[in-house]
Amino acid sequence: MLGSRYDDEVCSIARTLEVVGERWSLLILRNAVFAGTTRFGDFQRSLGIASNVLAARLEAFVSAEVMERVPSDLRPASREYRLTAKGRALTPVLVALTDWGDAWAAPHGPPIVYRHARCGGVVTGATVCAGCGQVHDSSSVVATPGPAMSPERAERVAARAAARLPVPEPGPASTDRSTRGDPS
Amino acid sequence: MLGSRYDDEVCSIARTLEVVGERWSLLILRNAVFAGTTRFGDFQRSLGIASNVLAARLEAFVSAEVMERVPSDLRPASREYRLTAKGRALTPVLVALTDWGDAWAAPHGPPIVYRHARCGGVVTGATVCAGCGQVHDSSSVVATPGPAMSPERAERVAARAAARLPVPEPGPASTDRSTRGDPS
Repeated sequence: MLGSRYDDEVCSIARTLEVVGERWSLLILRNAVFAGTTRFGDFQRSLGIASNVLAARLEAFVSAEVMERVPSDLRPASREYRLTAKGRALTPVLVALTDWGDAWAAPHGPPIVYRHARCGGVVTGATVCAGCGQVHDSSSVVATPGPAMSPERAERVAARAAARLPVPEPGPASTDRSTRGDPS
Repeated sequence: MLGSRYDDEVCSIARTLEVVGERWSLLILRNAVFAGTTRFGDFQRSLGIASNVLAARLEAFVSAEVMERVPSDLRPASREYRLTAKGRALTPVLVALTDWGDAWAAPHGPPIVYRHARCGGVVTGATVCAGCGQVHDSSSVVATPGPAMSPERAERVAARAAARLPVPEPGPASTDRSTRGDPS
């Protein structure tokens, strides 16, 4: 698939875009995730795209294990494309794309509102901090080196991040804490 | 921009992809959001893409008001591309793409870990329900008609959603509630 790879990028965004970044890919996944579409003809009717493009996208999803090709329940001779867990895990990407479109490109209001199957509540995307809860200010998200970053790049990224992150307080040594005798 | 539009789609995902769905767009935005890149040459060096492609993407971002072209602080004769609030609001899309890549396409661990500038905690994307908190099961997100959906499509979407959403309990009529005299 010429032009769908970002080989020089050591980046999880690039890896994800290699799977879902081609034209129509995310709209095909949207139909699979939210409309439960599984059949070639149903994808094609709903999206109105060329069948060679649709076939290429679905094959790529099968190769990437985002979908699996299974015999149709209704007509065992034909095939359906079903989302795998790996495919369904793209739901938060679809929700985040929807949120932005709703906020910035939906002058007549949102065409779709996501709701929670369990309680019916409205579902949106969020960015959450394991330390203090929801992050409301996007500009406070800082990229820091992870285990798979090259040492050379990690040094640059860490230096940039250090200027924006809080300096850890020296605080009591951990032995102080462990001898506090809290019964809980 | 041939091929970047999804005109027949009344869908916030499609509208978002018209702004960020072309090849390299989201990686350019990644560098702007997380590395603070603003200069043409810095984008080009870091991404290694053809200058005509980069120029087209940056111009499209300026047209879409995702970036603004401003005189450079350092060299007033040259221009920089700065994210607007609309551009920075794409951060959750980048985080969601990263989360998926980390989970499904990062055999050596995540190259980047996002942290919260305020407290240093690890930041990830989430899907949250206004009714009951975080949604852990992606398959429980149901698409329902929003105000901008055509009546014909809304009927189909609502019927599909009704099969998956809880039936509202009959409960006391609202007049019962309003006369309850709760002092709070």
